[in-house]
Amino acid sequence: GLRNYAKELSRLEAADLFSEIEDAEYTIFFRLLEKNTALDVFESLDPEQQARLISLMEDPETLSLVESLDPDDQTRLFEELPAKIAKRILAEMKPGDAAAVSQLLGYPAGSCGRFMTSRYLTFHENTTIGEVLAGLHTSPLRPDEMGVIYVIGPGRIYRGYISLGSLLKTTPEIRLGEIAAEPGLFVRTTEPRIRAAELVAEYDLYAIAVLDAEDRLVGSITFDDVIDLLEEEGTEDFLKIGSVRDIGMSVKDATIGILYRKRLPWLLVLVLMNVFSGAGIAYFEETIAAYVALVFFLPLLIDSGGNAGSQSATLMVRSLATGDVGAGDWARLIGREVFIALALGVSLAGAVMVLGIFRGGPGIAVVVGLSMMLIVCIGSLIGMTLPFLLTRLNKDPAVASTPLVTSFADITGVLIYFSIATWYLGIGA
Amino acid sequence: GLRNYAKELSRLEAADLFSEIEDAEYTIFFRLLEKNTALDVFESLDPEQQARLISLMEDPETLSLVESLDPDDQTRLFEELPAKIAKRILAEMKPGDAAAVSQLLGYPAGSCGRFMTSRYLTFHENTTIGEVLAGLHTSPLRPDEMGVIYVIGPGRIYRGYISLGSLLKTTPEIRLGEIAAEPGLFVRTTEPRIRAAELVAEYDLYAIAVLDAEDRLVGSITFDDVIDLLEEEGTEDFLKIGSVRDIGMSVKDATIGILYRKRLPWLLVLVLMNVFSGAGIAYFEETIAAYVALVFFLPLLIDSGGNAGSQSATLMVRSLATGDVGAGDWARLIGREVFIALALGVSLAGAVMVLGIFRGGPGIAVVVGLSMMLIVCIGSLIGMTLPFLLTRLNKDPAVASTPLVTSFADITGVLIYFSIATWYLGIGA
Ligand SMILES: [Mg+2]
Ligand SMILES: [Mg+2]
Ligand SMILES: [Mg+2]
Ligand SMILES: [Mg+2]
Ligand SMILES: [Mg+2]
Ligand SMILES: [Mg+2]
Ligand SMILES: [Mg+2]
Ligand SMILES: [Mg+2]
Ligand SMILES: [Mg+2]
Ligand SMILES: [Mg+2]
Ligand SMILES: [Mg+2]
Ligand SMILES: [Mg+2]
Ligand SMILES: [Mg+2]
Repeated sequence: GLRNYAKELSRLEAADLFSEIEDAEYTIFFRLLEKNTALDVFESLDPEQQARLISLMEDPETLSLVESLDPDDQTRLFEELPAKIAKRILAEMKPGDAAAVSQLLGYPAGSCGRFMTSRYLTFHENTTIGEVLAGLHTSPLRPDEMGVIYVIGPGRIYRGYISLGSLLKTTPEIRLGEIAAEPGLFVRTTEPRIRAAELVAEYDLYAIAVLDAEDRLVGSITFDDVIDLLEEEGTEDFLKIGSVRDIGMSVKDATIGILYRKRLPWLLVLVLMNVFSGAGIAYFEETIAAYVALVFFLPLLIDSGGNAGSQSATLMVRSLATGDVGAGDWARLIGREVFIALALGVSLAGAVMVLGIFRGGPGIAVVVGLSMMLIVCIGSLIGMTLPFLLTRLNKDPAVASTPLVTSFADITGVLIYFSIATWYLGIGA
Repeated sequence: GLRNYAKELSRLEAADLFSEIEDAEYTIFFRLLEKNTALDVFESLDPEQQARLISLMEDPETLSLVESLDPDDQTRLFEELPAKIAKRILAEMKPGDAAAVSQLLGYPAGSCGRFMTSRYLTFHENTTIGEVLAGLHTSPLRPDEMGVIYVIGPGRIYRGYISLGSLLKTTPEIRLGEIAAEPGLFVRTTEPRIRAAELVAEYDLYAIAVLDAEDRLVGSITFDDVIDLLEEEGTEDFLKIGSVRDIGMSVKDATIGILYRKRLPWLLVLVLMNVFSGAGIAYFEETIAAYVALVFFLPLLIDSGGNAGSQSATLMVRSLATGDVGAGDWARLIGREVFIALALGVSLAGAVMVLGIFRGGPGIAVVVGLSMMLIVCIGSLIGMTLPFLLTRLNKDPAVASTPLVTSFADITGVLIYFSIATWYLGIGA
C-alpha cells in the first residue's frame, strides 16, 4: 500500500514528491515515511519547504525534526519560519543548541557568520598527527564533517588547515603546526557569503574557515552549502532579470495565486513606465498624422534600443554577481561601451536604411538611420549604467531587468525618433 | 622589481591579472612567475585562458604545462585548443597520458564521460580497512583526490563508495565490501553532465562514480568541477536569455571586437523580426490615420505582452535548466498558465482602461482593454511554450531569450490591437 510505496522512495524522489503535493497530504505523507527516511527527506528539503512542513505539523513532532538539522541548516530554517513558531521552537530546544542558533542568527543576513556552521574539527597546533587520527576515531562529528581539520593556536587564533587526505600521507610524529597550510585563506564573519563561495570555487576547497575580527576561528563553510548558495543566487538573479520576483520554490509547485502575486507588481510598474512613451508619442501627434509611415518603423527602432540595452544590462548584472567586475569599474568600462554601441548602431542603421528607402522614401530612410544609431547608443548606455547605479544604491543589480531597461529605452527611443523626424522632415517647431 | 611583484602575487591575484593583460605581456608575465606558482596559476585559469596562453607560447614550454593538468582539465583544454596545436601536443605527450585524454575526448560533448577524471581511488571489495589505510599512505594520488574511495568487485563492477572520514571511524579488520555505501548512486558515461551535478548537489557528495554500460567503474566527477560547471552553465544561460552569446571569458577582459561579434547577430535577428511588426502596422494604415490616438497606446500594449511573455519564458528556462520541470511537463502546466495569464490580463486591462477613457474616450478604452487582455494571454503562452519547443528540438531552451519572446509578442500584439480597433471602431473590412 501507500506505506510500502513511501518506504521504497529514494531521498531524491521523496523530496521531489514533497514539492508537488498539497498542504493536506503533506503531513500525512511525511508521517508514512520511516523515521530515518523522514529525517533524511526533511534535511534535503529547501528551507522554505522545511518551514512549510514545520508550520503544518503538530508541536511535539517538530522539535525532533529541527534538532536533527545542523546548526547552519537550522539558521536557514529559522530565517523562513514565522516569528511566533520560531520563538516557540527555540524555547523548547536544548539550551546549548538554542544558544548556538541564536548566535548564528545574530550575524547580519547574507554574511559569512549567518551562513557558517559551528560543527567542524579543530586541533591545537601542538597536537601530533597520530593523536589527531586517534581523536578522529572517537569524534562525535559525522564523517562528512571531517573532510578538513582546522589548526588553531592559543586563544583559538587560526593557523591554517590540513585535509584529511594529507593527514594520512604524513608521519604520525609530526605536529599539526608544522604542516598547517594557507593560514591566510579564510573569510570574516562580517564578509558577504558570496566571498566564501568565490574562494571555495577558486581554490577547490572542501571548506573555508570563518574568523572573527580578532582572528579567532568561529565557524566553517563547506562546499555543499556553497553549491546550494550558487544555485539559489543564480536562480534569484535569473528570475529578477526576467522581472519575476523569486518564488522561493519549484515552479511546478507554485499555485496560480503565488505566481500571480509574484508577476503582477512588475507588470504594473512597466505599464506605468510605458505611459510615458505614450505621452511622448502624443506630443508628436502632428508629425505622425502627416507621416503615418513613421509608425511602421516605431516598434523596430525603439525595440532595437531596448534589445541592445538588455544585452549590456545582462552582461553587467552577471559580471557584478560573479565578482568579475567591481562596483567601481563603471568609469573604466564606459568608454569601451560607447565604442561597441556606436559600432552596433552603425551596423543596424545600415540595415534599416535599406528598408527605409523601400518603405518610405529617402527622407524617412535618413530619419530612420540616424535614429537607429542614436537609439542603440543611448539604450546600451542605459543598460550598462543601471546595474552599477543600483549597486551604488545598495540594491541588487539584477533588478535592472531586461523589461525595465527596454522600458527606459522605449521612452528615449520615442523622443529621439520623433524629434529627429520632426526636425528633418521640417514639420512643427 | 616586476619579478618580485610577480612572486608575491597569490594564485587568485595572478589569475585575475591574467584575464586583464594583453597578449604581448601575457607570456612575458607568465615567465616571470616562479615555476610552482606558474603551474598553480595555469591550473586555475579557465580552459579558454589556458588555450590562449598555450597558443601564444613557444613549443617546448607548453608540453610541461599541459602535462601538469589532471586528465579532466586536459580534456577541457583540448576542447578549446585549435585542432593543429592540439594534435601536435598530443603527439608529444607521454603515450599513456595521451591515450587517457584521447579516450575522454571520445565521449560526446557535454556527457559525463567527457567531464570525468580518470584519477581516483579504487579498492577491491575484499580489501580490509587496514590495508586501504596502508595503501593510501603510499598512493601516487594527491590528497584532494582521496576524499572518496570507490569499491569495486570482479571486472571493475561498481559496489559503492566510502568516504575517507567513514574509513577512519571503522575497525581496521572490516572489509570494504561490508561497508560500501549507495551502490545505486552513480551516473553513466553517456548521461548529460548536468545530471552528475544534480546528484552531487542533492546528496552533498564529494564525488560521484561514472559507470559504463556494463556497470564498470570508469571515472569520477568531483565537487570542485561541479561548482565550476554550475557557474559556467549559469552564466551561459543568463547571457543567452539576455540575447548575448556566451563570451567565454571575463567581460572586463573582452575586447570591443569580441563583444561586437557576440552581440550583433542577435540584434540583427531581432530587427528582422520587427520588420513583420512594421508590416503589420502598415496593413492597418487607414485605421491609424483615422485614429492617431491609437498610436499612443501601441508601446504600452505590445510591451505588456512581451513583458508577461518574458516572465513566463524566464520561469520555464530556469526550471528546465535546474531539472525542476521536465521536457514533458508542458501539457500539465499549460492549463495553469492560461489561468494566470487571464488574471494578469484582466488586472492590466483594468489599469489601462482608466487611462484609455482620459486619453481617447470610451471607444478607445474598450479597444485598449480588450486588446490588453488578449495580448497578455497570448504573450504568456508564447513565452511559456517556446522553451519547451526548443527543448523538444534539442536546442538550448535559454535561446528563448526575453528579446526573442518580446519580438514574437510584438507581432501578435500589433495584429491583435489593430484588428480589434478596426473591428470595434467600425472602419475598413
Ligand atoms: Mg575550482
Ligand atoms: Mg547539507
Ligand atoms: Mg551545512
Ligand atoms: Mg543577486
Ligand atoms: Mg529560496
Ligand atoms: Mg518592455
Ligand atoms: Mg546539497
Ligand atoms: Mg577535476
Ligand atoms: Mg580544479
Ligand atoms: Mg543551457
Ligand atoms: Mg566558457
Ligand atoms: Mg518592446
Ligand atoms: Mg524586443
